[in-house]
Amino acid sequence: MSQVWKDYQEKNKDRFLNELLEMLRIPSVSARSEHKQDMVRCAEMVKQRMLEAGADKAEIYSTPGHPVVYGEKIIDPKKPTVLVYGHYDVQPADPLELWHSGPFDPVIKDGKIFARGSCDDKGQFYMHVKALEMMVQTNTMCTNIKFCIEGEEEVGSNNLADFVKSHKDLLKADVVLISDTAMLSLENPSIDIGVRGLSYIEVEVTGPNRDLHSGVYGGAVANPITILSKMIASLHDENNHINIPGFYDDVVDVTPEERKMMAAAPFNEKEYKDDLGLKELWGEKGYTTNERTGIRPSLEINGIWGGYTSEGAKTVLPSKAFAKISARLVPNQNSDKITELLINHLKKLTPPYIKLKASLHHGGEPYMTPVESKAYKAAAAAIKDTFGKDPIPVRGGGSIPICSLFEEELGIKIVFMGFGLDSDNLHSPNEKFNLENYYKGIETIPHFHKHFATM
Amino acid sequence: MSQVWKDYQEKNKDRFLNELLEMLRIPSVSARSEHKQDMVRCAEMVKQRMLEAGADKAEIYSTPGHPVVYGEKIIDPKKPTVLVYGHYDVQPADPLELWHSGPFDPVIKDGKIFARGSCDDKGQFYMHVKALEMMVQTNTMCTNIKFCIEGEEEVGSNNLADFVKSHKDLLKADVVLISDTAMLSLENPSIDIGVRGLSYIEVEVTGPNRDLHSGVYGGAVANPITILSKMIASLHDENNHINIPGFYDDVVDVTPEERKMMAAAPFNEKEYKDDLGLKELWGEKGYTTNERTGIRPSLEINGIWGGYTSEGAKTVLPSKAFAKISARLVPNQNSDKITELLINHLKKLTPPYIKLKASLHHGGEPYMTPVESKAYKAAAAAIKDTFGKDPIPVRGGGSIPICSLFEEELGIKIVFMGFGLDSDNLHSPNEKFNLENYYKGIETIPHFHKHFATM
Repeated sequence: MSQVWKDYQEKNKDRFLNELLEMLRIPSVSARSEHKQDMVRCAEMVKQRMLEAGADKAEIYSTPGHPVVYGEKIIDPKKPTVLVYGHYDVQPADPLELWHSGPFDPVIKDGKIFARGSCDDKGQFYMHVKALEMMVQTNTMCTNIKFCIEGEEEVGSNNLADFVKSHKDLLKADVVLISDTAMLSLENPSIDIGVRGLSYIEVEVTGPNRDLHSGVYGGAVANPITILSKMIASLHDENNHINIPGFYDDVVDVTPEERKMMAAAPFNEKEYKDDLGLKELWGEKGYTTNERTGIRPSLEINGIWGGYTSEGAKTVLPSKAFAKISARLVPNQNSDKITELLINHLKKLTPPYIKLKASLHHGGEPYMTPVESKAYKAAAAAIKDTFGKDPIPVRGGGSIPICSLFEEELGIKIVFMGFGLDSDNLHSPNEKFNLENYYKGIETIPHFHKHFATM
Repeated sequence: MSQVWKDYQEKNKDRFLNELLEMLRIPSVSARSEHKQDMVRCAEMVKQRMLEAGADKAEIYSTPGHPVVYGEKIIDPKKPTVLVYGHYDVQPADPLELWHSGPFDPVIKDGKIFARGSCDDKGQFYMHVKALEMMVQTNTMCTNIKFCIEGEEEVGSNNLADFVKSHKDLLKADVVLISDTAMLSLENPSIDIGVRGLSYIEVEVTGPNRDLHSGVYGGAVANPITILSKMIASLHDENNHINIPGFYDDVVDVTPEERKMMAAAPFNEKEYKDDLGLKELWGEKGYTTNERTGIRPSLEINGIWGGYTSEGAKTVLPSKAFAKISARLVPNQNSDKITELLINHLKKLTPPYIKLKASLHHGGEPYMTPVESKAYKAAAAAIKDTFGKDPIPVRGGGSIPICSLFEEELGIKIVFMGFGLDSDNLHSPNEKFNLENYYKGIETIPHFHKHFATM
């Protein structure tokens, strides 16, 4: 069948690309309320495209937040069913001034599609829509396919949980297939066998009840920026170990064998540093770079602000300072537990001359796909078919909050077939998705269905 | 003469107020380039008002930055000359959302003028323009009066220095009189005998060359916010002593006698805390609140920003973080020396996995007015005339960068007659100036000229 699919894609590749570009032009930023209508518009387009690709039905389910798009093509209830999960929402585009072209005005340059969402995740979930079209048009469907494409992945998938719980029958499947991760390279294809969990909070530190003149009051009143900095500074010790009592209690130590296997994956530290413009890497003592992002939890300050931040100088002792703080979690850390630990720890650090207010953004649990699972084996076989070599199992550093919920509620395994690259600038200016990866993904996906149907 | 002045003011008080309100409506924010035209407009108004008040001449001197307004009324070259210094520029008004009324749309409420610049310094320098009118109209001039009203005090007075150096003859005087400070209260009038110096820098910390996905890279790459926080945190030790080697080297220790005198000034800690909404004060161990702002240097973070600072959550490991940092200096600290110390110290703290760029905003030297000086004595006598009691000599926490330059270039002393209050919200939202203080200032100023002329 391989050649049939290749031929079909070759004939339709320009359209496959143009359809994606059209979707990338919609600024479906879930975090910003001003894009609420864009979210609806994007959901409509996803639905329409599923129907055009050959879905029997496609529907938009509204939620208290942004809508979920569901679609399906059932060829035979007795055949295995693959549930494709993805998300049509994207991260905010700012800082806008660092983009070389408009984030929602996609351009193709050097074989890459530059646009917010090109890789994360419009480009990746749309590969599955095009793979469906390919199988339908060439009469090669061998599984039932369901789609669950949500609009709140970038803000924690809060409403998807309720949707899944109340639509278990609709979503009933044998496996969840997700393309929302990266592979090492086209030369070294890999499959993520784990994603990290997430705990995300925001803190507001208040000193005096108003902004003060830094001369009149400076030295006599605690500056909330100074205090917040001291609190943040204390969160990592001199070995860059996270300095919160109990934080590592549930972390599963990875066996020396797995660490050895990880170390065998190709990694060029010089290239990694050069790509990032860094003289030296940083991280928890005793672990390699891949271990630091794969098997170890991390804690990042995602944003900080307070006082005067515009042009010139203002001699102010500000009333407030803020920070957005998130932790990435590994098995068996629990998101709620870590969030509570983090907030309680910050409260404990709070000195009497400031007030601390902590609020929750969103969380998600870490997830692992066993390499012995049928799902992993089908994905590995598909990669072997189209790349000509076995994929390397790796642990990804990102998070897909919904994974553990799918497993819990639907009782099925998740498998990640990501076709992006770590260098795709996800969540950053100039996000891109290589054309070659997009087409290779569309080519590979039908092979997964083929193997999964016959295993 | 006292009654003549009082009567004149009583008859003209509404106009005295309305003229000030008109000037407060001009957003003369020197730090923001978009207000360049407003600065010119405000300078024109200052010139016009001097002429209307009875100045023989008034002129606008352009500079590479914002213009200086000079005016004079010479009654007799043999009489003493008083040079009034002030500034028509104001601090930026943001955060705008915290103002109860428009910062440039002055309102009178509860006997207070609310507007940016009402106290700092339009309201205060304008008292001198109205005092001139009063003396001219009542034929009671007894000194020559010169005005030097600049437009760059809030951004460091960089171009005023050149102006003073190249116009020494024009500015020749026997004393500089400045109303740009506060008094304790109308019940406890005081005179600032010192202002602190200033050293102000901005730092940019760069980690990776672009914003990164905090999942994919988190834990393996230094986060510039975390590193900047650690650097900031280290700048104060556990006693809130500034932790920069050499920082205190030139600080003149104040004698136990002066500290005792300072301690006698009325200060109610509970009221001070309640006014600021604070449970506990903060500051250098071993010093009182007034000492911390008066005789000790301080170091404040005036602004910090980096990463994602908008609504919602973004899982980014940012490329850059920034801070605005300033120190207030006391005799005999030197602004350039402290700036260099501070930058060098931050460079020394810089770990190899980030880059640090430090730039200079502006500085100014600390200044002291001896209580034995003729200028101080004339100011004290004027206060006694109109307030009925001797003023308390206090040390102010703010900075007036130009003071040491005046002394150096013109060879004369500076005396501060401030009629504002510490609670006037200088540099903050809802800046105000009490009507009573405005009128009391206008009433008191002629008494200064009277005493200075006859001492």
